[in-house]
Amino acid sequence: MHYARSPLLFLALLAAASGSNAAASPMFGFRPEEAATERTLEQRFDADINADELRGWLQTLSAEPNHVGSPHDKANADMVLALFQQWGWNARIETFEVLYPTLKHHTLEMVGPTKFVASLHEPPIPGDESSARTSQALPPYNVYGGDGDVTGELVYLNYGMPDDYKDLARRGIDVKGKIVIARYGGGWRGLKPKLAQEHGALGCIIYSDPQNDGYGSGDVYPRGGWRPPEGVQRGSVQDLTLYSGDPLTPGVGATKSAKRLPLEKVRTVLKIPVLPISYADAQPLLAALQGPAVPPAWRGALPITYHFGPGPAKVHLAISSDWGMKTVYDVIATIPGAQSPDEWVVRGNHRDGWVFGAWDPLSGHVAMLAEAKAIGALLKTGWRPKRTLVYASWDGEEPGLLGSTEWAETHAEELRHKAVLYLNSDENSRGFLSSGGSHSLQRFMNDVAASVRDPETDVTVLARLRARMMATGYERTAGAQEKKNGKLAGSGADLPLEALGSGSDFTPFLQHLGVTSLNVEYGGESDQSGVYHSVYDTFEHYVRFGDPQFAYGVAEAQTAGRVVLRVAAAEVLPLQFTGFADTIAGYVDELHQLADDKRKNAEELGKLLDQNVFSLAADPTRAVLPPSREPLVPYLNFAPLDNVATRLKASAKAYDDLYARFVAGSLQLTPAQMKELNALLQGMEQTLTSPRGLPGREWYAHLIYAPGALTGYGVKTVPGVRESIEANKWDDANEYSTLTAAALSAYCERIERATAVLRQGS
Amino acid sequence: MHYARSPLLFLALLAAASGSNAAASPMFGFRPEEAATERTLEQRFDADINADELRGWLQTLSAEPNHVGSPHDKANADMVLALFQQWGWNARIETFEVLYPTLKHHTLEMVGPTKFVASLHEPPIPGDESSARTSQALPPYNVYGGDGDVTGELVYLNYGMPDDYKDLARRGIDVKGKIVIARYGGGWRGLKPKLAQEHGALGCIIYSDPQNDGYGSGDVYPRGGWRPPEGVQRGSVQDLTLYSGDPLTPGVGATKSAKRLPLEKVRTVLKIPVLPISYADAQPLLAALQGPAVPPAWRGALPITYHFGPGPAKVHLAISSDWGMKTVYDVIATIPGAQSPDEWVVRGNHRDGWVFGAWDPLSGHVAMLAEAKAIGALLKTGWRPKRTLVYASWDGEEPGLLGSTEWAETHAEELRHKAVLYLNSDENSRGFLSSGGSHSLQRFMNDVAASVRDPETDVTVLARLRARMMATGYERTAGAQEKKNGKLAGSGADLPLEALGSGSDFTPFLQHLGVTSLNVEYGGESDQSGVYHSVYDTFEHYVRFGDPQFAYGVAEAQTAGRVVLRVAAAEVLPLQFTGFADTIAGYVDELHQLADDKRKNAEELGKLLDQNVFSLAADPTRAVLPPSREPLVPYLNFAPLDNVATRLKASAKAYDDLYARFVAGSLQLTPAQMKELNALLQGMEQTLTSPRGLPGREWYAHLIYAPGALTGYGVKTVPGVRESIEANKWDDANEYSTLTAAALSAYCERIERATAVLRQGS
Repeated sequence: MHYARSPLLFLALLAAASGSNAAASPMFGFRPEEAATERTLEQRFDADINADELRGWLQTLSAEPNHVGSPHDKANADMVLALFQQWGWNARIETFEVLYPTLKHHTLEMVGPTKFVASLHEPPIPGDESSARTSQALPPYNVYGGDGDVTGELVYLNYGMPDDYKDLARRGIDVKGKIVIARYGGGWRGLKPKLAQEHGALGCIIYSDPQNDGYGSGDVYPRGGWRPPEGVQRGSVQDLTLYSGDPLTPGVGATKSAKRLPLEKVRTVLKIPVLPISYADAQPLLAALQGPAVPPAWRGALPITYHFGPGPAKVHLAISSDWGMKTVYDVIATIPGAQSPDEWVVRGNHRDGWVFGAWDPLSGHVAMLAEAKAIGALLKTGWRPKRTLVYASWDGEEPGLLGSTEWAETHAEELRHKAVLYLNSDENSRGFLSSGGSHSLQRFMNDVAASVRDPETDVTVLARLRARMMATGYERTAGAQEKKNGKLAGSGADLPLEALGSGSDFTPFLQHLGVTSLNVEYGGESDQSGVYHSVYDTFEHYVRFGDPQFAYGVAEAQTAGRVVLRVAAAEVLPLQFTGFADTIAGYVDELHQLADDKRKNAEELGKLLDQNVFSLAADPTRAVLPPSREPLVPYLNFAPLDNVATRLKASAKAYDDLYARFVAGSLQLTPAQMKELNALLQGMEQTLTSPRGLPGREWYAHLIYAPGALTGYGVKTVPGVRESIEANKWDDANEYSTLTAAALSAYCERIERATAVLRQGS
Repeated sequence: MHYARSPLLFLALLAAASGSNAAASPMFGFRPEEAATERTLEQRFDADINADELRGWLQTLSAEPNHVGSPHDKANADMVLALFQQWGWNARIETFEVLYPTLKHHTLEMVGPTKFVASLHEPPIPGDESSARTSQALPPYNVYGGDGDVTGELVYLNYGMPDDYKDLARRGIDVKGKIVIARYGGGWRGLKPKLAQEHGALGCIIYSDPQNDGYGSGDVYPRGGWRPPEGVQRGSVQDLTLYSGDPLTPGVGATKSAKRLPLEKVRTVLKIPVLPISYADAQPLLAALQGPAVPPAWRGALPITYHFGPGPAKVHLAISSDWGMKTVYDVIATIPGAQSPDEWVVRGNHRDGWVFGAWDPLSGHVAMLAEAKAIGALLKTGWRPKRTLVYASWDGEEPGLLGSTEWAETHAEELRHKAVLYLNSDENSRGFLSSGGSHSLQRFMNDVAASVRDPETDVTVLARLRARMMATGYERTAGAQEKKNGKLAGSGADLPLEALGSGSDFTPFLQHLGVTSLNVEYGGESDQSGVYHSVYDTFEHYVRFGDPQFAYGVAEAQTAGRVVLRVAAAEVLPLQFTGFADTIAGYVDELHQLADDKRKNAEELGKLLDQNVFSLAADPTRAVLPPSREPLVPYLNFAPLDNVATRLKASAKAYDDLYARFVAGSLQLTPAQMKELNALLQGMEQTLTSPRGLPGREWYAHLIYAPGALTGYGVKTVPGVRESIEANKWDDANEYSTLTAAALSAYCERIERATAVLRQGS
């Protein structure tokens, strides 16, 4: 369906949005004459992408459960291998041997004051044939939770995040010796049992509250796409904030011969049992809790009054798993570069799902296949990429980015020297372009997005995303960040790349190896999250609620394909630095603000505690204790960061100005100069890494982007400094301020050397 | 129960909080020597207030349903009359004859796609004997709704407020010819059917969503105090934004001989039928709705996905009432003033409830009785008030402030010339002092609050309220206004009086007649709202959840008693103007901001519409239409208000400085000067009224405080200007800016004349 809109304005907007697509405008990476060639190539590429093929591949790949160790996972690897080979790629399967606990037995029951046995079962949904095809499926569980058989009083944890423990403490509630129940949301699932374990809980239940992705969000499956009462979110609780990949082989590839840690030395596997359940199973447990009623932010959408507990509900939780090894099958397909075979453009999407995985990950995977097929068709016309293309169908992402991490660790040295880009995607659906990654690619990504048509509106995907940010920023419900983004979008500036945390296969490339990375997907117009990691993430569900026409699968293939083709063919790699410099300056401002706010808050809280206001204000019949006193915040040395942020802006501008002349055709470079430039640009993201890694987690080497130690998938930028301030570790904050500034200085230096090369142009 | 707290800090705080209570500190209204006498009097007054008596009166008064027209309402009037007389007051019953529709028949059923008949019944609650004593009770209904028998498709309205209609319009949904269902909350109940009627709806259902005062707020009765599934909120839907009181006699007392409007000319009675229902009755109706799912702010706590409709649910709603007259019985008790019998201190609380009315209003009424008894005891010792005391037990507040309004209208001229204060209260319970009213009494009210002990913490009620504002302002969940209030409280400044809107009997005094007014109650620590206006508002509920020890009933009697005794005895009435001047300056700033924000918003929206961003951003499968274009906002003439706000600050400071010297004993006034001053101060609030009244509602004469035309009970300050801006009526805004400024100028002039008198002191 299309909208009535003013045709004149529409045409005007279309023209504006199309501007950068016109033959006359520059294309980042290319001189004008080469850009025209590249555009022609993209038209041929687009012509070979076929929505019906995406649909067919999705149906086949998601026909059976395809988790790690399942027969269909291996069958899918073989099918993908055969397709790549058929399309003319050099393809092979690389395997790794990983620790993969498989559930043998699980029980959850309430033993008092009343009896209730949780069903832990996801029944078939009428009209969804796949959902009945579960003989090969794993039951719902959280992989890498501990084994255990525990009984204890229940405590409700809300999201189980650090602030929730503060709220509990103020009611004098301790989870030590208790079993906790937390709802999904508010932070990464793995932190819930990790923090519970640190606080002395015996076991952890995680449930999907209907407020977050059930009837409180919209109609449930099959009437709508949201989570039905029995739907369960599986998922990994491996502590990926320490490292991703096989728990036994941190930092090295899990090849057959790899040296492995003994299980008892593994820090990323939990000690306590953890179990995900549905809201149908959670309701009787939560309804049986007493103790104080929870505050509004803790309430979900079940038709009960939520209480903290502890008890009187007492539950018995027992889990045991087979702690054996499994094989993961990565399909790796390459086309050697005709001019620069030692410069690699790496593109990946995982292939394993939790059950059928139609949305997650196969919707993104089929777009990647479409790119590969179209590239194969170009090959058959005699075209060759300048740089080497490496396409990867990752296995074992769901349990902990296993396939990608082990491959990246195995090929680490080669990747450090050769990779010019890692481009990731995961699930994909109707909606808006969502792109994140290295901010040196922000300008380039805007340029790519200005060249792809949105299927629903027929403006470019960049114009549509801009419109959405502007519209969202205007709405009555807009938050501060949405208003800010709305203003930014309205100003016509480049739309920001998101900083990447974790939750998909970019992590080992970007944050461990320092490879310039992007994650590019479409979404935001679908009822997806309601079947996330459940048996209901099926082909039937996807074609109703995800992308019925596969139009956004096509858009994804066009977008990712342009990124790959342009980077592979670029005469000078399309990095630009002003966007990165502005982003860094913003982060440094945030760090100042964070320290100042914490200082002010600690002082204010101290005064309030001195005046006893919390005790005086409390209702004596429903006591809420005062908050804990916060340590006073010293003034920190941000000078190194302030100085380098200033230098970075100047360095970036000097480079970008000259680079703009190059792509406009007014500055000529010799092949030798271009080669020198590309050599400087190839590994420059690695200057942002440190062999020391982040405090307490050396595997994470990137000093600008990391998954948060206390947010999980959620990013923390300038993490060494930011998280040290958040954790009141002032010495670490000062030390990482210096370390991060040194990395940024090295980055500046590299830009300045590249600028010197550009200056030699004529 | 008391709290562990640091004894040293506690003592320090106590001492600070007690400062103004020490014999040496000034008492507003009195020279130091007179203040000491007054303090002794207050100690004697306090000694005669007895919690057990409050409990006994509450039990008797709430023993049977006591709505207008019920036998127990009349019996309570007789009992209160007898008590006043027994305590030595001159007491009488004044009656008025008012239009009071009484429900004869009501039906609500869903006629398709499935059948459902609403029970409309509140069954007894085990353990609450009162709740079974309902033979005399009225069934749940909304008095002054229209009669009607309508059938139509149902549409869900959220709160049924203006913004909700904007959300409906953006989904292309029109309520014309439909029956609407709105939830309680978000604005005054009467606006829901009024706006629905204006939008062409056939009928209106109002239900209590469990999110707002049921299990979504806390444990329901009898486990906790919140609304049980069958509980219904009765209430008036008379359009009190036009005028309060008997619909047939606007502006004049509803005496037997009064000239009455024919019913068809009455503007405050609705044309469409309206019915309040429980969430048990609402759930099947809401669950049967389809159409788009609602946005998050529209969702309640029922275990369903909320949809807008319209339909397919089709409902049949029929209501018919007896449109006869009823008598309301006001008990009026007086003690003539010994020195200034023509200066009246009027004190009132209503007596009628919707059913048993233990909380609303009898909890406040019994505190008033305790004051009257203690004053009676003082009388017996030979004490006489300087000014005349008038205590009023109002009838008919629930249907529309009938008893107070008709009495105030009947005695309007006398009140204008004699009243120095109207002090109101309504329901009262454990918690914090809540006071609102004329800001010329802000300083005085802080002084009174600094002299009353909080029963739970043993600091003053002022200190406890200050602590609560500071604590609330600190919490993670604090909103902008709470943070601002927390800062204000932490600064040690006077705590603000709330501006009064409506919803209790102060309205005819303050907003129609311009009598300086206060409303003073305790609350905020109880599970009250869950039984509001239901059959479960019983003695049993109140003594569990309201004020089990009647300690806050005693605190209320002490607080209101001090206000009455001090104002009655003050040598110079204790008005102070700096608080008022600062408040007005704040309001004028808000008006500037309002106009500026609207101007900016209209411009921004216009640009976004020109760029078509809303259509581009919309999901074509779930279309949300663009917002309507807003008219551009001209620059308004705020100069008169800006100028008078500046003048008011200067005038106020000059007066307050001299007055401070008077109460400190360093400025002496002759009896003649005091008399002259009191004469100037008596009617000065009336300078803030205009005979023209507010736009479209001339009965509301006060130019600073009014119930909002689109908020109901919620106040609008400087309403002639503010509401004109909100309604895009620029000429009205300019006109009322001038009119309000002129009133404030007259107020300044009066202050300046009073200051001139003070200057004559020595």
